[in-house]
Amino acid sequence: MKLPFASDYMDGAHPAVLEALVRTNGRKVAGYGEDELCEEAREKIREACGCPDAEIFFVSGGTQANATVLGALLAPYQGVLCAATGHINGHEAGAVEKGGHKVLPLPAVWGKITAQQIRQAAEAYLSDMSRDHVVMPGAVYLSQPTELGTLYMKTELEEISSACRTYGMPLYIDGARLAYALACPENDVTIPDLARLCDVFYIGGTKCGALCGEAVVVPVKGRIPHFFSIIKQDGALLAKGRTLGVQFGALFTDDVYFTLGENAIRQADKIRDAMTRLGIRTFVLSPTNQLFAVLEDRHVRKLQESVQFNVWEKTDAFHTVVRFVTGWSTTDEETDALIRCLEDLG
Amino acid sequence: MKLPFASDYMDGAHPAVLEALVRTNGRKVAGYGEDELCEEAREKIREACGCPDAEIFFVSGGTQANATVLGALLAPYQGVLCAATGHINGHEAGAVEKGGHKVLPLPAVWGKITAQQIRQAAEAYLSDMSRDHVVMPGAVYLSQPTELGTLYMKTELEEISSACRTYGMPLYIDGARLAYALACPENDVTIPDLARLCDVFYIGGTKCGALCGEAVVVPVKGRIPHFFSIIKQDGALLAKGRTLGVQFGALFTDDVYFTLGENAIRQADKIRDAMTRLGIRTFVLSPTNQLFAVLEDRHVRKLQESVQFNVWEKTDAFHTVVRFVTGWSTTDEETDALIRCLEDLG
Amino acid sequence: MKLPFASDYMDGAHPAVLEALVRTNGRKVAGYGEDELCEEAREKIREACGCPDAEIFFVSGGTQANATVLGALLAPYQGVLCAATGHINGHEAGAVEKGGHKVLPLPAVWGKITAQQIRQAAEAYLSDMSRDHVVMPGAVYLSQPTELGTLYMKTELEEISSACRTYGMPLYIDGARLAYALACPENDVTIPDLARLCDVFYIGGTKCGALCGEAVVVPVKGRIPHFFSIIKQDGALLAKGRTLGVQFGALFTDDVYFTLGENAIRQADKIRDAMTRLGIRTFVLSPTNQLFAVLEDRHVRKLQESVQFNVWEKTDAFHTVVRFVTGWSTTDEETDALIRCLEDLG
Amino acid sequence: MKLPFASDYMDGAHPAVLEALVRTNGRKVAGYGEDELCEEAREKIREACGCPDAEIFFVSGGTQANATVLGALLAPYQGVLCAATGHINGHEAGAVEKGGHKVLPLPAVWGKITAQQIRQAAEAYLSDMSRDHVVMPGAVYLSQPTELGTLYMKTELEEISSACRTYGMPLYIDGARLAYALACPENDVTIPDLARLCDVFYIGGTKCGALCGEAVVVPVKGRIPHFFSIIKQDGALLAKGRTLGVQFGALFTDDVYFTLGENAIRQADKIRDAMTRLGIRTFVLSPTNQLFAVLEDRHVRKLQESVQFNVWEKTDAFHTVVRFVTGWSTTDEETDALIRCLEDLG
Repeated sequence: MKLPFASDYMDGAHPAVLEALVRTNGRKVAGYGEDELCEEAREKIREACGCPDAEIFFVSGGTQANATVLGALLAPYQGVLCAATGHINGHEAGAVEKGGHKVLPLPAVWGKITAQQIRQAAEAYLSDMSRDHVVMPGAVYLSQPTELGTLYMKTELEEISSACRTYGMPLYIDGARLAYALACPENDVTIPDLARLCDVFYIGGTKCGALCGEAVVVPVKGRIPHFFSIIKQDGALLAKGRTLGVQFGALFTDDVYFTLGENAIRQADKIRDAMTRLGIRTFVLSPTNQLFAVLEDRHVRKLQESVQFNVWEKTDAFHTVVRFVTGWSTTDEETDALIRCLEDLG
Repeated sequence: MKLPFASDYMDGAHPAVLEALVRTNGRKVAGYGEDELCEEAREKIREACGCPDAEIFFVSGGTQANATVLGALLAPYQGVLCAATGHINGHEAGAVEKGGHKVLPLPAVWGKITAQQIRQAAEAYLSDMSRDHVVMPGAVYLSQPTELGTLYMKTELEEISSACRTYGMPLYIDGARLAYALACPENDVTIPDLARLCDVFYIGGTKCGALCGEAVVVPVKGRIPHFFSIIKQDGALLAKGRTLGVQFGALFTDDVYFTLGENAIRQADKIRDAMTRLGIRTFVLSPTNQLFAVLEDRHVRKLQESVQFNVWEKTDAFHTVVRFVTGWSTTDEETDALIRCLEDLG
Repeated sequence: MKLPFASDYMDGAHPAVLEALVRTNGRKVAGYGEDELCEEAREKIREACGCPDAEIFFVSGGTQANATVLGALLAPYQGVLCAATGHINGHEAGAVEKGGHKVLPLPAVWGKITAQQIRQAAEAYLSDMSRDHVVMPGAVYLSQPTELGTLYMKTELEEISSACRTYGMPLYIDGARLAYALACPENDVTIPDLARLCDVFYIGGTKCGALCGEAVVVPVKGRIPHFFSIIKQDGALLAKGRTLGVQFGALFTDDVYFTLGENAIRQADKIRDAMTRLGIRTFVLSPTNQLFAVLEDRHVRKLQESVQFNVWEKTDAFHTVVRFVTGWSTTDEETDALIRCLEDLG
Repeated sequence: MKLPFASDYMDGAHPAVLEALVRTNGRKVAGYGEDELCEEAREKIREACGCPDAEIFFVSGGTQANATVLGALLAPYQGVLCAATGHINGHEAGAVEKGGHKVLPLPAVWGKITAQQIRQAAEAYLSDMSRDHVVMPGAVYLSQPTELGTLYMKTELEEISSACRTYGMPLYIDGARLAYALACPENDVTIPDLARLCDVFYIGGTKCGALCGEAVVVPVKGRIPHFFSIIKQDGALLAKGRTLGVQFGALFTDDVYFTLGENAIRQADKIRDAMTRLGIRTFVLSPTNQLFAVLEDRHVRKLQESVQFNVWEKTDAFHTVVRFVTGWSTTDEETDALIRCLEDLG
């Protein structure tokens, strides 16, 4: 068995999630998320958001969440601004475009976009004499943490939120790995901050201890009319909604979601330290659970014999960016073994 | 707590499914269904289908399966023939149309369509002088058992399959409740029959003991090019694919899937007998786990005080069709209590 | 050359339209309909509508107008109510569904639907416990005259309009053959009536004397935000917009559009009288320029030798419905010759 | 009246086109392009292409042609490679994305892409371990002349065509201004070359002397099954198809299409010479009928008082790129007056 650093969704469920599934298994409840187990989970998430009126919708995956939310927020003639490295731009097989909307990529630095870029894009549209022949920027998408493991600081998000509101563009935040941001010492953005600053965001379950599932949060009730029906139409509604509700109920009990990422950050820190010590080049300085290293191709091949990790992209003819991901379940033994493998590259 | 006869997805997971989730929880495997747990499940399903080369794809829900498969099978200018009572026509919030395809409903008798109807529709298209202005019937959708709980007999499916092949229309079968057909004494259609007779079908998990998930079977490998990518694009790919693979692995071990429906049928038979004895009118003669009764409106209201069931449709100013559904987990106590409630209607 | 009764778009342009195209050909103006020729035409149409603030958009064809307008009026989760015989339901190759929306057909009597049907459909949706799983009726489509040549009376449209407003559903009227309604003595619906009663309608050019083009009228300015951009996105915007503007300018000068249909009605009346005299069965009693007759199949074949007309549908094994269409350019010679052919059927 | 250099679609029809419309106006023919006038035009285009079996479809505009052809060529999971400056990427309001497909922009030099870029994009996809999560490049779009007025040389197109065939990607060429390429001395690409090298291309009418209309050429018959029906579904089929057929018949009689651009090139050359003489900076060296100049902003404002032209984009805080377009109908007087205006900028 190779060392498991390919992703944070290689494991099963967090023990608290599994326990809740087992404990509630015998109950018989209504379908489609209209049951008390889902409602309990929603209530806990509302509390965590500091939004007593927030609407919460559970869907089974992240691409689904992104395509469904953006499809609901955008008018037919609108597209979505995002980092060129944004997940919706490169790794969702064109799901947003399948829904009819252009993704409008902005050059990103370390996976992040800025309020200034958003303002410029909005102004460029407004001042374009041919703007009616152009896709209107109609929403902003970003990820916290980003696809490169970096974090938006609270002031950055506040400026982005302000820019979005100036131009009437809803802000949507993809929190697929949100638990790993929350557990990161560098992070100063809380869930209530997200709820305050954006129009819609989702709290990732799949990569943060659930078997599957993401919780889409709409802080202002009624922001998306008929969203339940849209979710159904997009095939994103689980008949046995309790499957997701029970899991999120467990994640938002006893601070599981807020502490679950700590181990991942600790293991990532150990690997980061080892990379520094070994002089391994870092591709991007990320403080969370994704680490990007630039390795010689022959080292990549050697490492592949004993470690599962991602080959990200070539930087030149002889070097490749690779990604290691830790998770809530990464063990000290696994991390130490990975570090030994890195040491052995010589 | 009211008696749970609203659906067959009110419970949690079948014990064998839950046990498998718990047992495999500690393993770390690759994502997106490209792991050994999923592959084991696929191998078991291939055996059950008698199709060593079949491709199996796990998706999280039925509407998703239907929209994704039909979107992949149909050319842009084609629509799908189905019973007017078909799930895709009335209860999926327009998911197939959202994907760009017209649903072409055929009048159904007890939820079923016939080979003759399919041939007539195909011939009507071909003989229409204006056929290029008309949506071309490009596939056939049916459910086994149907949305009204009835069953296609093997000879019927053979004729339908033959009609579809004559006209080059793929046949797609929705097996959301397939386990309940397989457990029904009246049924003579096996899973290998489905694999032999149709182009794509899905084996329902959500309504048949899983927490979520359906297994889409493509008996002839390569029938849908790039189907993995299509599933990703449609938001139907779980990152943690093992969540579905483990469940289907358990369902297809020790004949769980083939025996799981027996209890549901037995409980349904008891209710059917009671309805006959009590002179309650049957809306449709279904041999599986869905029972449709015509009740006086006042009786409906009374029953709602103690039983969860579905209000289907009005038949006249004073009567309503209601649906009771049993499942693998329905208990004798629940059934007996329901029968007592029916007796009490007077 | 066979007698031309297949459609009202067999001829070139009405002389007044052709003259205007020739007269304005040398002028150089801005593109995309943002020129003075288009603006003059719009101003004339606004006057004809009695709506000084109406927005007018020229598009090149009817299917395009229907799909673009309905796509703009409907939310993603909504469908459009229409007569089962409606053009969008049967003869536009699934254009509305391609745009993601279900067409919700209502049984039609002589091509018409009623306010009561609309109210019932809206109420059925609202009272459906599962309405979130169902396509919401979000707009109403009808044609004046209908696809069967019949006419809505003003009281009927007022009731329909009232029903639509009660339920918040926009009313859209397809006026592909509007000139033939306006010229019909039975008609009591004016263009200002349409502007008053519906949310959007289009004034047909293609079938009413233009080389191509339809004028979409939005009586209340701003009803469809960014409609220009939507039209561009749907490929419905002509770069040389003046091509349509000049034609509609001519059609709405000197009452051309209001008198152009008179000849068609007169010729149709002659054919209708002949059919009555000859005992030819009428399929539907239409007072406008489309005539539907039930003929023996052998008579159809004989007639096809010398007349161009439409084969509509079979009524039984030996009879077929055929359609004859007259137009603004149908001559007395052509009509008399057709009548002789009908007489010769014996 | 300001000098008309904003586009090549400011005028009416070329005299030969107008004459043909007038001459054929009295004929009554079948609809939807299934008439002898359209067939004559198709036959002439087939001859001009050197493709006796080519299929020709007339549609009313360029955005429509692009979206319809690309929608027909691409599978749902595919996108289209094009220059970042390509018309489909920036000036069609997201029409291709509305159809569900991602536009995959490549950095362009002077509006052109290369065979090497196409090969690299195809190889990058094939070698991407996550390619099933990525939009597959499924076709290549380019314009001749390009959106910046530049030309592909025959060897460049041959290499591009070869790259496309290596990777199984259809090549589609947008010939909106094709007549201006054909009339350009620098050009060495003929219409038969286009027919030989690409899978589909269109011959522009709107910008080349027609009132409206483009002729889509499919050199290999049957390359797009049911394309007529797709065109209808996309709202791109004119009922009065003869309107387009007659115009293209005239354009392809007596070499009109091949000589019509000569005047435009001659006038553009005069402006180019004047710009050189006056030391006006050229933004891109284009040999056809579009000229791009970099002007001081105050000169732009002054010029706008007497000339219609396009403001393209800012190059810095004080300068702007502007575009002048000549056409088949540009007169010596107009050109001389424009040159005087440029001289007067001082």
